[in-house]
Amino acid sequence: MASEKRLEVVTCTAPVNIAVIKYWGKRDEELILPINSSLSVTLHQDQLKTTTTAAISRDFTEDRIWLNGREEDVGQPRLQACLREIRRLARKRRSDGHEDPLPLSLSYKVHVASVNNFPTAAGLASSAAGYACLAYALARVYGVESDLSEVARRGSGSACRSLYGGFVEWQMGERADGKDSIARQVAPESHWPELRVLILVVSTEKKPTGSTAGMQTSVETSALLRFRAEALVPARMAEMTHCVRERDFQAFGQLTMKDSNQFHATCMDTFPPISYLNDTSRRIIQLAHCFNAHHGQTKAGAGGAPRAASPPPGAASPSRSPGLTSWLQVAYTFDAGANAVIFTLDHTVAEFVAAVRHSFPPELNGDKFLKGLPVEPVPLSDELKAALGTDPTPGGIKYIIATQVGPGPQVLDDPGAHLLGPDGLPKAAA
Amino acid sequence: MASEKRLEVVTCTAPVNIAVIKYWGKRDEELILPINSSLSVTLHQDQLKTTTTAAISRDFTEDRIWLNGREEDVGQPRLQACLREIRRLARKRRSDGHEDPLPLSLSYKVHVASVNNFPTAAGLASSAAGYACLAYALARVYGVESDLSEVARRGSGSACRSLYGGFVEWQMGERADGKDSIARQVAPESHWPELRVLILVVSTEKKPTGSTAGMQTSVETSALLRFRAEALVPARMAEMTHCVRERDFQAFGQLTMKDSNQFHATCMDTFPPISYLNDTSRRIIQLAHCFNAHHGQTKAGAGGAPRAASPPPGAASPSRSPGLTSWLQVAYTFDAGANAVIFTLDHTVAEFVAAVRHSFPPELNGDKFLKGLPVEPVPLSDELKAALGTDPTPGGIKYIIATQVGPGPQVLDDPGAHLLGPDGLPKAAA
Repeated sequence: MASEKRLEVVTCTAPVNIAVIKYWGKRDEELILPINSSLSVTLHQDQLKTTTTAAISRDFTEDRIWLNGREEDVGQPRLQACLREIRRLARKRRSDGHEDPLPLSLSYKVHVASVNNFPTAAGLASSAAGYACLAYALARVYGVESDLSEVARRGSGSACRSLYGGFVEWQMGERADGKDSIARQVAPESHWPELRVLILVVSTEKKPTGSTAGMQTSVETSALLRFRAEALVPARMAEMTHCVRERDFQAFGQLTMKDSNQFHATCMDTFPPISYLNDTSRRIIQLAHCFNAHHGQTKAGAGGAPRAASPPPGAASPSRSPGLTSWLQVAYTFDAGANAVIFTLDHTVAEFVAAVRHSFPPELNGDKFLKGLPVEPVPLSDELKAALGTDPTPGGIKYIIATQVGPGPQVLDDPGAHLLGPDGLPKAAA
Repeated sequence: MASEKRLEVVTCTAPVNIAVIKYWGKRDEELILPINSSLSVTLHQDQLKTTTTAAISRDFTEDRIWLNGREEDVGQPRLQACLREIRRLARKRRSDGHEDPLPLSLSYKVHVASVNNFPTAAGLASSAAGYACLAYALARVYGVESDLSEVARRGSGSACRSLYGGFVEWQMGERADGKDSIARQVAPESHWPELRVLILVVSTEKKPTGSTAGMQTSVETSALLRFRAEALVPARMAEMTHCVRERDFQAFGQLTMKDSNQFHATCMDTFPPISYLNDTSRRIIQLAHCFNAHHGQTKAGAGGAPRAASPPPGAASPSRSPGLTSWLQVAYTFDAGANAVIFTLDHTVAEFVAAVRHSFPPELNGDKFLKGLPVEPVPLSDELKAALGTDPTPGGIKYIIATQVGPGPQVLDDPGAHLLGPDGLPKAAA
């Protein structure tokens, strides 16, 4: 029985997620309740994941946490909120009369160790995967089986979307206590096997405005953000859900780009204004529109991007309207940073990666430039090179991570995977 | 009498104007009627002006036009619209029974020559000054004395605001025929003598999206632009008018920055998105907020910019709200390009120019870097240097033009000023 063991230990992994309908702004800073619902794609853990080990023992004298090998302050409010919440759920579960596999565990202190398999320097939002993994591991070790949305959400709002694989919505909810502000899977990871994701890691010197401070200022100052959240997002959530269910890449890609642009527009409308995109980000946006325009056999219009083109058979979509991209091959989205996340379909990956190499000649050697899923090199047609136009920006993109849609959090059964040793302290870094 | 003269010739000058409540989007492409009212500051012609000579003669066989020495196609639709409109007004005036100083002039062809005293390369919107000057010169030569808003507006919407000095509003109007879409002076150039204007000309390779194509795409695709025009601009027009009348620089500057940011936000919300600001533009925005924050004795907050600071005595303003800049010293605004226009007061010019030199060390020699009104060099305090923080960007700004609020179009009496000779052809370029 666990109660006889000196140490109860669990190790889990959790994924990164990328929002295609963006979350920006809280209606409750304490409970982390959003001003609008959001929808995300869970990325595969083969490329990007957080691994977290949680151990409890009657011998531990205090809660402790190690992130990427360094011990951090466990007193940090959001961490404390997660611990309080998981212990509350465990207590609730027992009082609900379930036989308790860990009689004394509620009084046990916990040790947590967490690592990412990707460089934090890459500027990829790791807090979502991190808090989802923490919530998942704590639930296992404390024997909690209820919905973990609130536990993860209290750590980082978007973390609740990393609790599921595939396509996930975070329903904003209406209740003041946040009980109905939860994550739900819209479609599993197996739903759209052709979908691919390319993360273009952009070289940038300075750290961008933190999203917590940024979104707070936006809520306080941007009338456009309020309008977006109240008047525009509900319809976009419904449309995006439809696009995903129908696997309509045309509509999915177009709405993904428009929602990313609108999010960054509300950042610009914030006072003082917030800019996450830099000149390289904007060149990537232009590259994507030129690439699509080329495949749409359309002429470049406003912003060097395509004007209305006749949609190909079957490309019709609910969101098609005048002046928008048709025959879409790639779609971009940007979170609170300069890195681009590109959605495309398997048959387009090789050509688009070649286009990126053409527009952003790698400074480090070619092998290191492309990480993740293998992509075979293909030549670029002269027509496409001409369509891409703009002069190359060497080194503008540090590297590309090629990945795909993936599953939710996992429990690792192999004891060798534990990040904490029998003494409850981090093993010597592998 | 004019009718006996072989050549009737008039030379006028007109100013550039900078909108502080932005015009973006037409409700009528043909008549050039805007989706919202706008308000601008007329810049002084000592630094920026267009000079236009219009000549009519019974001997001319066709309308002709020369811009900056090169003959252009007079058949260009907007030019034709201006000519049609001025001749309509002249005809109307005669039919209204005014004695006509130029009995036959209506049938005469016109020759027009126009030059700017500033490099078009600078990327400063010259069309407003150009069409205002054309309307003004044509009116004089054809003996038209009625409101010229429509004549100028048909050439370029914002041109109607260059028909007056000081502070000018363009009332959007409601009529389908546009008769009530006219420019009006809010306050004369003498109203706010301390106000200064600095144009920071930003180095940029590529020409931005033209505003005509850009705003059309925005109207077609941006829900945020529609909301801004309908729900936000009316109150902003009223507030800006109040700020100008009261000479409240705190409120004027803050609303000017917010409206510029919101305009660029709607460009970002356009699909495909439009970006006029580049990394240098964004560094200027940050510089302005840091400069203000330093003088507000506030700590830098979100976006490296000031959070709420206690307003100094008398700085209270209708637009003051939590988290916004207090004790504001400079305000930026950007039109459809990367150049910044800075508004400040006379006593702050020297220190801010020093701050710009510090953050954007000139590549060409110091004298050429500063044009226009004289600005004496002053040293920067170490505190301010520290507050500006960010590492310098050499050559990011090509040069600065220092100017101020100025008068409207003028008629030049000196015959030596004519750009057309007695033969009605351009004089040898001076």
